[in-house]
Amino acid sequence: MPSGQTVTFLSDYGSTDEFAGVVRSVLRRLSPQAVVIDLCHDVPAHDVRAGAFMLARSAPWLAPGVVLAVVDPGVGGPRRGVALEVADERGLVLIGPDNGLLMLAVASLGGVRQAVELVRPPAPTQATFGSPGPTFDGRDLFAPAAARLCGGAPLTELGPRVDPGTLVRGPVLAIRREGAQVVAEVVGSDRFGNLQLAARAADVAHLGSSVVVEAGGARGRLARRVEAFGELAPGELGVLIDSSGLVALVLDRQSAARALGAGPGAPVRLGPGAGT
Amino acid sequence: MPSGQTVTFLSDYGSTDEFAGVVRSVLRRLSPQAVVIDLCHDVPAHDVRAGAFMLARSAPWLAPGVVLAVVDPGVGGPRRGVALEVADERGLVLIGPDNGLLMLAVASLGGVRQAVELVRPPAPTQATFGSPGPTFDGRDLFAPAAARLCGGAPLTELGPRVDPGTLVRGPVLAIRREGAQVVAEVVGSDRFGNLQLAARAADVAHLGSSVVVEAGGARGRLARRVEAFGELAPGELGVLIDSSGLVALVLDRQSAARALGAGPGAPVRLGPGAGT
Amino acid sequence: MPSGQTVTFLSDYGSTDEFAGVVRSVLRRLSPQAVVIDLCHDVPAHDVRAGAFMLARSAPWLAPGVVLAVVDPGVGGPRRGVALEVADERGLVLIGPDNGLLMLAVASLGGVRQAVELVRPPAPTQATFGSPGPTFDGRDLFAPAAARLCGGAPLTELGPRVDPGTLVRGPVLAIRREGAQVVAEVVGSDRFGNLQLAARAADVAHLGSSVVVEAGGARGRLARRVEAFGELAPGELGVLIDSSGLVALVLDRQSAARALGAGPGAPVRLGPGAGT
Repeated sequence: MPSGQTVTFLSDYGSTDEFAGVVRSVLRRLSPQAVVIDLCHDVPAHDVRAGAFMLARSAPWLAPGVVLAVVDPGVGGPRRGVALEVADERGLVLIGPDNGLLMLAVASLGGVRQAVELVRPPAPTQATFGSPGPTFDGRDLFAPAAARLCGGAPLTELGPRVDPGTLVRGPVLAIRREGAQVVAEVVGSDRFGNLQLAARAADVAHLGSSVVVEAGGARGRLARRVEAFGELAPGELGVLIDSSGLVALVLDRQSAARALGAGPGAPVRLGPGAGT
Repeated sequence: MPSGQTVTFLSDYGSTDEFAGVVRSVLRRLSPQAVVIDLCHDVPAHDVRAGAFMLARSAPWLAPGVVLAVVDPGVGGPRRGVALEVADERGLVLIGPDNGLLMLAVASLGGVRQAVELVRPPAPTQATFGSPGPTFDGRDLFAPAAARLCGGAPLTELGPRVDPGTLVRGPVLAIRREGAQVVAEVVGSDRFGNLQLAARAADVAHLGSSVVVEAGGARGRLARRVEAFGELAPGELGVLIDSSGLVALVLDRQSAARALGAGPGAPVRLGPGAGT
Repeated sequence: MPSGQTVTFLSDYGSTDEFAGVVRSVLRRLSPQAVVIDLCHDVPAHDVRAGAFMLARSAPWLAPGVVLAVVDPGVGGPRRGVALEVADERGLVLIGPDNGLLMLAVASLGGVRQAVELVRPPAPTQATFGSPGPTFDGRDLFAPAAARLCGGAPLTELGPRVDPGTLVRGPVLAIRREGAQVVAEVVGSDRFGNLQLAARAADVAHLGSSVVVEAGGARGRLARRVEAFGELAPGELGVLIDSSGLVALVLDRQSAARALGAGPGAPVRLGPGAGT
């Protein structure tokens, strides 16, 4: 590929510290021909579940190459670092901690074809202020592994093979049916306040064009099935299939999260509307 | 150009979601030789006016290539997607929704030379969780169009020509004169709390070196014309021509926005100071 | 180098304005073969000290090339712009204001080999709304200098030589010993609430595995020396050597900054624990 390898980079490092920048620097230094595509660095701190969903939602659009994902509260402890080659035709390899973060995306990409446990390179012996501690595996373990793959190393050079069956499982879409009603967890709330639910289009198809929504302890609120935000009147609640293929609760140019008082992890109950 | 095409990318996608990252991934995948320059992704949500001013302020410094701008509350509705080639010698093409977002920059770049309406490519039929809805045109419409231009396609391959006179108008500098006084709207407030006004240097030239500022309902406050922040005493209000050529109200190392209780859209009245 | 020069870019421009994006655009335009690595743009506004420590922490991992650092409350005033070549084998050149921002990193990189004062290029005469003021040296002074170095210009073409002894000094690690106790300033607080102290491993070696921590006006709180977050019980305070080699106060998956009510600049007292 003339323009070099791609490393797609997701983390919970945030923007106020140099963590993501240092990882980018390590990649640039070890693999100058690689291009880093920042997917997102504001996964809520330590929130493996949110990171797993974000990676899964993004999976169909990722460029071929390496995916470097770090949401890693167990850093420095016994959890493994892994590299997972998936069956998808793009030949993506996902690198990160073995804590479930990668697995929802892996499942959407055809599952694991080959997995290895990352062998730790020699620790940096001297940082600016002395010998650094083992709390920055993005810099010290994961980025060097990504750079080696970009440089042409085969997966099996990164470490010993791992039985995919031993990998920590990822999160699931938490949804259940109660009669005609559907109870689905809020997967996430985006910048615009749209509430993404753990429900697919098929899960709500029986509800018709009018839906009663119970969330955040409030009484049922009537919502309308729409395709786009602009179909809604001011303040009217909408139910639409969002850009990831999941059911979302939305308002036009307002925050459904604020209007409903609901956020990630909260259960939302959807039932058939009166006029259905 | 040996280092590939440039796509300058502005949006209101924010940093907490994967939206900007997915658009970068699509560009990388469809046009691996292109380089994405992130201009800003924290335009206030849905704020077409703020995005239009930001793009206009940035216009003189943009690298040749494609500008991809997405502040698009009407996504999924009838508003058009457009690509506008401007008369500027850099041959920039601006891509985004036809909602006024691009027009202030276009005007500063010599106006439209050629405009087309983007023809929608086939919708993605399968995302991770099912068939996605039409609410992410950055990913599904605008980025693919930008990639085609980077790949060498002429503008007219993206869709049918549009009469530039039919494009939605952009925002204007809201300013009026009342005797010796000038009433100008706050265009924006930056990270440092500097208040940018809808006034050019010529609009305040008659006011001299001492200016009375009325904003946020408070009584007139005396301000001094300066060239740099450091000329001001602690707490002293300053009036300077900022890096975009607009009049700004500033303090040294403090927030004028907070001190005056004013923000975007608020009217500010400037009059000649007592000693002038 | 086939993949072009690297410009590592740090600033306090934040993410809500176009400032960092415009600097990236200028670099792309003037030096299309250069690659920009964003280190961080959310240094607290005007906080030269915080930026200096961030740059110093990052220094060992930076890619060869130019470092462009802008935290510059004195912009437009008499402070100099400088380019400093350091003795480090990577041949890094650091560009920024002469206000101490660069000096802690410079010291960690072997000191200054050669320094020049940047000569200001002709000011931009026409921005979108008129002739711009002198308040954006990242765009008008520092980025053009970085681009010239990327294009192969020798350091001395950027301006006259400067005696390194005249450069404004950088911040220092503020720490003192009182008997068996150590009083160290908080250098910074990261996204996860970890409090980095102005103390190295050797400064706390005598304290043993149990440490009494006084911070934020509260009574002494017992903390335990650990190597990783996961060794701590919920709510237990830990002392570890962090990824920069400095002493940090941490909790497992919680914010030590919030728990202790302490932030940058606050003094923290560390003493031997009861059981030591």
